[in-house]
Amino acid sequence: MKYVYSFKEGNKDMREILGGKGANLAEMTSLGLPVPQGFTVSTEACNDYYKNNLTISDEVTSQIFEKLSELEEITGKKFGDRENPLLVSVRSGARASMPGMMDTILNLGMNSVVCESLANKTNNRRFALDSYRRLIQMYSDVVMGLPKGSFEGLFDEYKKEVGVELDTELSPSNLEEIIRRYKNEYLRLVGEEFPEDPRKQLIEAVKAVFRSWNTDRAKTYRKLNDIPEEWGTAVNVQSMVYGNTGDNSGTGVCFTRNPATGEKKLFGEFLINAQGEDVVAGIRTPESIDKLKDIMPECYEEFERICDTLEKHYKDMQDMEFTIEDRKLYMLQTRNGKRTAKAGIKIAVDQVREGLITRNEALLRIEPKDLDQLLHPVFDENDLKSKKVVATGLAASPGAACGRLYFSKEDVVKAHDDGVEDIILVREETSPEDIEGMNIARGILTVRGGMTSHAAVVARGMGTTCVSGCSSLVVDSSNKVIRTENGETLREGEYISLDGSTGNVYFEKVKLLDPEISGDFETFMQWADDVRSLEIRVNADTPRDAKVARKFGAQGIGLCRTEHMFFDEERIFNFRRMIIAPTLEKREEALSKILPYQREDFEGLFTEMDNLPVIIRFLDPPLHEFLPKKESEMRDLADSLGVEYNFIKEKVNSLKEFNPMMGHRGCRLDVTYPEIARMQTRAVLEAAINVKKKGITPIPEIMVPLIGDVKEFLFVKAIIDVEAEELFKEKGESVEYKVGTMIEIPRACVESDRIASVAEFFSYGTNDLTQLTYGFSRDDASKFLKDYYDKKIFDTDPFQSIDVNGVGKLMSISSIMARKVRPDISLGICGEHGGEKKSIEFCNKLGLNYVSCSPYRVPIARLAAAQAAIKARKN
Amino acid sequence: MKYVYSFKEGNKDMREILGGKGANLAEMTSLGLPVPQGFTVSTEACNDYYKNNLTISDEVTSQIFEKLSELEEITGKKFGDRENPLLVSVRSGARASMPGMMDTILNLGMNSVVCESLANKTNNRRFALDSYRRLIQMYSDVVMGLPKGSFEGLFDEYKKEVGVELDTELSPSNLEEIIRRYKNEYLRLVGEEFPEDPRKQLIEAVKAVFRSWNTDRAKTYRKLNDIPEEWGTAVNVQSMVYGNTGDNSGTGVCFTRNPATGEKKLFGEFLINAQGEDVVAGIRTPESIDKLKDIMPECYEEFERICDTLEKHYKDMQDMEFTIEDRKLYMLQTRNGKRTAKAGIKIAVDQVREGLITRNEALLRIEPKDLDQLLHPVFDENDLKSKKVVATGLAASPGAACGRLYFSKEDVVKAHDDGVEDIILVREETSPEDIEGMNIARGILTVRGGMTSHAAVVARGMGTTCVSGCSSLVVDSSNKVIRTENGETLREGEYISLDGSTGNVYFEKVKLLDPEISGDFETFMQWADDVRSLEIRVNADTPRDAKVARKFGAQGIGLCRTEHMFFDEERIFNFRRMIIAPTLEKREEALSKILPYQREDFEGLFTEMDNLPVIIRFLDPPLHEFLPKKESEMRDLADSLGVEYNFIKEKVNSLKEFNPMMGHRGCRLDVTYPEIARMQTRAVLEAAINVKKKGITPIPEIMVPLIGDVKEFLFVKAIIDVEAEELFKEKGESVEYKVGTMIEIPRACVESDRIASVAEFFSYGTNDLTQLTYGFSRDDASKFLKDYYDKKIFDTDPFQSIDVNGVGKLMSISSIMARKVRPDISLGICGEHGGEKKSIEFCNKLGLNYVSCSPYRVPIARLAAAQAAIKARKN
Repeated sequence: MKYVYSFKEGNKDMREILGGKGANLAEMTSLGLPVPQGFTVSTEACNDYYKNNLTISDEVTSQIFEKLSELEEITGKKFGDRENPLLVSVRSGARASMPGMMDTILNLGMNSVVCESLANKTNNRRFALDSYRRLIQMYSDVVMGLPKGSFEGLFDEYKKEVGVELDTELSPSNLEEIIRRYKNEYLRLVGEEFPEDPRKQLIEAVKAVFRSWNTDRAKTYRKLNDIPEEWGTAVNVQSMVYGNTGDNSGTGVCFTRNPATGEKKLFGEFLINAQGEDVVAGIRTPESIDKLKDIMPECYEEFERICDTLEKHYKDMQDMEFTIEDRKLYMLQTRNGKRTAKAGIKIAVDQVREGLITRNEALLRIEPKDLDQLLHPVFDENDLKSKKVVATGLAASPGAACGRLYFSKEDVVKAHDDGVEDIILVREETSPEDIEGMNIARGILTVRGGMTSHAAVVARGMGTTCVSGCSSLVVDSSNKVIRTENGETLREGEYISLDGSTGNVYFEKVKLLDPEISGDFETFMQWADDVRSLEIRVNADTPRDAKVARKFGAQGIGLCRTEHMFFDEERIFNFRRMIIAPTLEKREEALSKILPYQREDFEGLFTEMDNLPVIIRFLDPPLHEFLPKKESEMRDLADSLGVEYNFIKEKVNSLKEFNPMMGHRGCRLDVTYPEIARMQTRAVLEAAINVKKKGITPIPEIMVPLIGDVKEFLFVKAIIDVEAEELFKEKGESVEYKVGTMIEIPRACVESDRIASVAEFFSYGTNDLTQLTYGFSRDDASKFLKDYYDKKIFDTDPFQSIDVNGVGKLMSISSIMARKVRPDISLGICGEHGGEKKSIEFCNKLGLNYVSCSPYRVPIARLAAAQAAIKARKN
Repeated sequence: MKYVYSFKEGNKDMREILGGKGANLAEMTSLGLPVPQGFTVSTEACNDYYKNNLTISDEVTSQIFEKLSELEEITGKKFGDRENPLLVSVRSGARASMPGMMDTILNLGMNSVVCESLANKTNNRRFALDSYRRLIQMYSDVVMGLPKGSFEGLFDEYKKEVGVELDTELSPSNLEEIIRRYKNEYLRLVGEEFPEDPRKQLIEAVKAVFRSWNTDRAKTYRKLNDIPEEWGTAVNVQSMVYGNTGDNSGTGVCFTRNPATGEKKLFGEFLINAQGEDVVAGIRTPESIDKLKDIMPECYEEFERICDTLEKHYKDMQDMEFTIEDRKLYMLQTRNGKRTAKAGIKIAVDQVREGLITRNEALLRIEPKDLDQLLHPVFDENDLKSKKVVATGLAASPGAACGRLYFSKEDVVKAHDDGVEDIILVREETSPEDIEGMNIARGILTVRGGMTSHAAVVARGMGTTCVSGCSSLVVDSSNKVIRTENGETLREGEYISLDGSTGNVYFEKVKLLDPEISGDFETFMQWADDVRSLEIRVNADTPRDAKVARKFGAQGIGLCRTEHMFFDEERIFNFRRMIIAPTLEKREEALSKILPYQREDFEGLFTEMDNLPVIIRFLDPPLHEFLPKKESEMRDLADSLGVEYNFIKEKVNSLKEFNPMMGHRGCRLDVTYPEIARMQTRAVLEAAINVKKKGITPIPEIMVPLIGDVKEFLFVKAIIDVEAEELFKEKGESVEYKVGTMIEIPRACVESDRIASVAEFFSYGTNDLTQLTYGFSRDDASKFLKDYYDKKIFDTDPFQSIDVNGVGKLMSISSIMARKVRPDISLGICGEHGGEKKSIEFCNKLGLNYVSCSPYRVPIARLAAAQAAIKARKN
């Protein structure tokens, strides 16, 4: 088996084996660009290392040394040689660029002998010694994992000792002393001498790269970005070139276009007389790449030519590293450059215009979820630099928010009434009763709850910034103060800022920038709409949401959760009256009070969604969710309803459930209380009739939730149809309506033929379907799923991306059964998954008609649907 | 459409249309037996009646009157005629005999004119008037639904008035006066005159029969016996014959064999000079059928001949009604007789020997669940007659029990230690901590919880009598007293009796009879074993259960729930120590204390199940089930463990779950705490090694619960295999073992190919699979499933009988996928359904290898499996 490849043996399509960096070094080599030669230890060697209990096999070692010999031949230099020593850099290079992994060791191959030789050869003793010093320091840090501080400390201490401020002021003998002290420190910490054998240095460095594949940070990054464990990393060993040999040398990084704006102009910076790490370290301020034109015009010209070659070759904006050694330009790396969503769109649209790429290629180039950046306010990056992150939670709902802190719905409402505009609500965790406060707040912060907690789901739906599960904070609601782990506190009314895209929390004001949507964005989205076949609808409960979503391109409402309409103070009062009503008559009376509100809400939705379908789901949650839990609240309720406290308490107790997720909810409520379905039918259809009179075209579609058996559906449908008929007779006017169901119970999936024979549409409720298919509750699973990720049982969160093998299989069985009996049935999805790329790709493959997602995900879904369509055509 | 059939037009195979009674009257007619002629209004007319909003259509009415005319022609009598009046009886007759439905109206067609005519014609004025009196009384009761008491009251009052004790002592003029008073009472209660028009009487009577199809009692019976709503009932109209015309007349009922013992000898009784209702009413004591031989030998001889004809014709024991009018014998009804299980088996075995039926016919004749009667003590029926039912709950675990009442596990244990032998435990509802008390008790009574509550499931498993959900009782545990709705009380230590087969509760001693298992039973079960292809295993957690089950014919253990082994006092202490252990080390230490107990239990199981497979399921419930819930108990635990109360409280809180059914349990525990799986592996395999040394052949099969993904299974299997290898090395000895899984999560069903590729057996856990497939929790569903039955959405309880369309579909998908990758995989079922006839039939159809059920259901399952095999061969 071949584990090691020289740069000449590879090309850009060998990312899997060579990693991104290695493949691109090989590609540049084959393009004839000036690349310092070297070789790549493959990702397969990395996997081999892990399989062999963290040891490098003899086979791999011998292949490394073989390629090393080749490299010695090419360069005419020799590893550890006294005359003409070869020095190399060692860099990690996974398939996808990954933060948290070991980056670089330079000057490897250096030892006392080589250092002397290099000093003589270059006639630059300072440079040789400084390179040696850097190697020891880097090796100790990244290979041996010794505390960074101890070497940096020694260095700074010594500089003080000799009264020197800049590194460049140190004399060769100063550097010799530092090297001596470094070696002593190394001996002290490791228990053995710094390895003077270059081959040992090399093998240890390779192992260090392999090890860095499994650091916590790397693992976390992989989980967040769905990078499989078994990809492994490659290691690039490259002969050194020096940007720090004097003023004819230098090093820099550059993008072929501006990665922030997308402007077509080289964007980069460089430092004269420096090695790569100096650019990153930020001790000296680098020059703009333009300056290179003046200083070394012939190098700049060559560089410009190379940039052009690379962009045309890769057909994408490139992010490059280069070094100039004695006025000779070397390319150290190229890769497709990261960019902001805004730049990404501009570059893609420009490149289409330039004829470099096709529209489809342009569409595939943007990560759908990155569009989110374009839809929310963001922090001013400049302002942010001076701010301190005091805690980090989950990036639950994107955007940035800044405002005064309040601890309860009541306080938020009061502050709002008092004229406070920017409000942040903090809660241990939110509950449906907090809706009013959440609606007012610019941002929501919770201590408990995950990415799919109440706070997170509602906030995303509202497009409100939210950081959830920020468990390092202690919220003391009674004293109205938050405390961080480090004891920092923030009190009611003080300023707090939340970054819903990173999860960062600041106990201070941070400046906000309004989103700017350029004309390219529109062009781009139009292209997406032209190719996609999936319709995109929105999950919206309010006219406000509907309006935003329509602006974002929603083609209808895929899910309106009617229960969210009950939480307003007056409504919930009547709703509670309904729940505790002892007789049908009393229940109907309470419902009749709610009817006008619901009707009005629906009128708003139909108006915003003129001529587009609006799917309204009937009441779903168990009734106990609407009742208070605390004694004091129960007493208040008893008072306001004019009944005994015990009566309320007994009702609350009788509604308690062992497993509310699997309890008395959804259509089961309509079976017990048909009057609820009757009221909701009337509210929907009266609203439709009313707006129709105003010239609006309502397309109402009633959705019955939680159907598990066709007979349940028939029972509820009969209630709806009878009530509709009565209403139409009463009003002397009628509207078309459909009755369909949510498929969210495993049984409904395997009973889909029977259900489809009577239901006019299906909407897959993948949230509940995922819970029931896996048999775990979203609220409880977060506790143990952590172990599942750690132990590599699960790669991805099935609540984020549809579980294709399980949930997807059931959906596939269902859709085939349904289409068999009703070929034109409309099939969609309305879970959280509706706005997620891979899930959308799956829905496209399944041939669903639409996906429905929260308003701020609509553009994301449009693009993801386009990408899915393009990919489907390719295969 | 034909709705009414004369007896001559039907036969016994027309049960669906004519009902059982009508079909048999027709059959007897065609056999040439002396049957008073008449006609049958079909079940389709009944459905028509319900479809038309409780009215009889003109079509049906006219067909009735057409057949009435035919009947008048045959009999030469005329309805309402002054000369030769026709009188008829009207009886209900559903496909299956059904208590709770309207039984009989006699003498229909009677009115003042007819009465006079009959008096003259029979020369028996008393008889005519008494018949008229009876008609008014019956008509008021069953047709008009008037309160029975008011007519009976008038009658008794009048008898007192005239100083008469026996009905027969009343003179004709007395009867005239009664009729007058009856008619007045009728007018008073109904608001109109008693109908003198015989045709009106007839149509109203037919409607009354139809209505009685939907009485609460009938509906309940149908639900309990899986009789579909849409079967409807037929109505039989038959010309009257009179057993009450004098001493040459009489009426009686008779079985062709003894329905209690099965003995081949006519078994019946009759009354001279009486109508059918007199026999039932029990006012006069009837004579044994033997006596008829002496009184009317020619009638007896004819009757004996008819019995023989009927048994040979129907090939089954018959239950008949007959009337003798002036020494002429009439057959009024015949049907297959109900019998006790004991009689059923004897009759079946005898009839095989007599060559009347085949073995397979014999096997099909016994309702499997009736075998249960043969396996438990029962109340002495004679003693029971004088006892009073004070409350009725659910018949949760069959058998009868009598003992002293105790209110807590502790009190039960104490009483037991004090030498009280027969103990009944009463609890609001039981929890796993009550196990010890339940184990000692002869019977268990709970106020809450359904047929699948903890008490019910555990009691059935133990074979202990249990009445659950007896909600009319109030249990005051603190004062140690139970109270009935009527205020009757019973205190600790007093005698209570429970009938687990009816749900009846008595606050007194009732005499118990030990079960007798005759040799015929064994023969019969042997025949069952010869034809069945499904293996029958047992769900057993203790050697005691295993022993009982093996005696009952179990062929291995299909499910041993290891958690039940943790509830003993000492064990639970260590188990709790394990749960609250802050470190792996402490957890392992606590587990090591539990290991010897588990090993010992397993040794017992292997020994009892020598050479038979024993499937041991690893720990399944969430850990919080093992921790106390009340503060006082938590404090006790803290004290005994030597930790702070707050520490315990926090642990209890942190383990709380929103939906424990979908929480951190099953294999998910092993993922978090591999040390639990390691301990259990060791306990199982050490036990196997130990018993092997004693010459026992253990066949251990380890079952991992709650698998949803193949990677979960691989993770746990790796733990097991590594531990096993280590153990075998340590002991220098090894045993064969299998590792399989429970399929109880919908996702596992659709991932069955992947799972089967690494799992050696599947056991369908249909309890949880039903919960998750339907998305309702067993604990909560009982609240709303009531509405589902009432509103006819569900016919049967999916926790009782496998839901073939949903759960069954998933099982079918799973078994096909599994067999594709591992053709010889062993597939079984171990939910509560494993002992239920229809579910067993389904499993047989699916081609499963075995079903596993609680010990006392093993014989039931053996027979059900035989029946399934016979039916499968037929189709």
